[in-house]
Amino acid sequence: MPLIPVSDPDDPRLAPYRAVRERDVVGHGERFVAEGEVVLRLLVEGGRGAGPRFATESALIAEHRADALAALLGKLPEEVPVYVAGRTVMDAVVGFPIHRGVLAIGRRPAPETPAALLARLPERALVVALSGVSNHDNVGGVFRNAAAFGADAVLLDGACCDPLYRKAIRVSVGASLVLPFARGGSGAALIDALDAAGFATFALSPAGAQELGEVVPARRTALLLGAEGPGLAPELMARSRTVRVAMAGGFDSLNVATTSGIALYALTRGRLA
Amino acid sequence: MPLIPVSDPDDPRLAPYRAVRERDVVGHGERFVAEGEVVLRLLVEGGRGAGPRFATESALIAEHRADALAALLGKLPEEVPVYVAGRTVMDAVVGFPIHRGVLAIGRRPAPETPAALLARLPERALVVALSGVSNHDNVGGVFRNAAAFGADAVLLDGACCDPLYRKAIRVSVGASLVLPFARGGSGAALIDALDAAGFATFALSPAGAQELGEVVPARRTALLLGAEGPGLAPELMARSRTVRVAMAGGFDSLNVATTSGIALYALTRGRLA
Repeated sequence: MPLIPVSDPDDPRLAPYRAVRERDVVGHGERFVAEGEVVLRLLVEGGRGAGPRFATESALIAEHRADALAALLGKLPEEVPVYVAGRTVMDAVVGFPIHRGVLAIGRRPAPETPAALLARLPERALVVALSGVSNHDNVGGVFRNAAAFGADAVLLDGACCDPLYRKAIRVSVGASLVLPFARGGSGAALIDALDAAGFATFALSPAGAQELGEVVPARRTALLLGAEGPGLAPELMARSRTVRVAMAGGFDSLNVATTSGIALYALTRGRLA
Repeated sequence: MPLIPVSDPDDPRLAPYRAVRERDVVGHGERFVAEGEVVLRLLVEGGRGAGPRFATESALIAEHRADALAALLGKLPEEVPVYVAGRTVMDAVVGFPIHRGVLAIGRRPAPETPAALLARLPERALVVALSGVSNHDNVGGVFRNAAAFGADAVLLDGACCDPLYRKAIRVSVGASLVLPFARGGSGAALIDALDAAGFATFALSPAGAQELGEVVPARRTALLLGAEGPGLAPELMARSRTVRVAMAGGFDSLNVATTSGIALYALTRGRLA
């Protein structure tokens, strides 16, 4: 694998890395930014023995990290350029200090509809569905938990943020590069797709009718979660079996990512080694 | 309650609010900064029907929030100054935009030792103990979960960050202003104090001997958690009953705050309404 030294922050080949933080705001179009060694590994190797889900367009590595990452970078296809720069140059390109010294640009494939994604899941499947979760930390946290508990996919309605936003990838510890997901449309359309694919949908809400520990998962089970403040829309709750997490009361409800972890734990207990 | 209008960003009475972000780095000494209406409410009123745990030294409120907060601010002792400023002045004082328009300075009481804190807990008690958790998001998240599931207190060793750091308070949704805590000393000293107070300590670790769902809580139960990367020190694990959360495997372990939520859920199920 040929390393390509770069020393000019204005090198046109580094355009995709320029002002990464601004890109975070305006969106990436077809590209996304992966950051850090753990995330790069999942981008390059994939996870769960499934191979990589995304094509890597290029990588930008700090000089002092190049040796330690040589074996991993060697797994990239030969035509993928790996740029190596000093820290000062790298920080100047990106616009802020990249302490980890590891960046890569991935390419997003054509989006998949929720129905198409659900159709290729196994007969016994567990899916997490999000409606209106626009906070990147929360979306990243949900992906991390979904991967940890072996969920098969994540569905997000169009009001959710992009799981391939840099910070969401980082908080997910790369899970959003590994777990299949589909994003777009309304929350009602997600439930339509889940219903059509034979999923039993359990909606988490402080006002849920059933306590989480009493839930018996179906062969195809979906967990539906909304944003912390507003919660799930009443029309989505009405189409789901509503579930609550028993709490001490008198205090603010749980963070949505934490709720997903508790619910995934409760639903998978006894089914995992 | 007299509102005190301020219009000069250099007003010496606003010194404690100056450069809040720098204070975050260097620490606050006796003072801490509370931010946002929910947190201010817990600072002023306390939680769990226990009254406020901290004295409020002053508040700084954006003009456009003053009317809506009048009833809450009226609960402060008469001698506590409430400064009111335009947003531009407020942002200039603090050094960055304060979108919520609500700040207050609290005063820290003399610190309590873990032993003294444990001694005043009820005979049936649940405590969360942290060793080496230096990330403010994680400490804040643990406090939020501890409050949600009715834990009685949080212990932190000296390698943990301050739960009264501004961001930790915010992520805790004010729980660190409500839940009693003690911080300092070594992890071993925390276990000494827990042992002496008759607590059964369960240490969460991916290598735990017992699965979480099999744990039968004792009358006095402590959950011990370490930082994500290094985990708990072997000598602390050796002095605890080790517990694991069953996961799908093949993916990174859980975030420490999420782990605390799952463990608190599992240990309190059947004991909460």
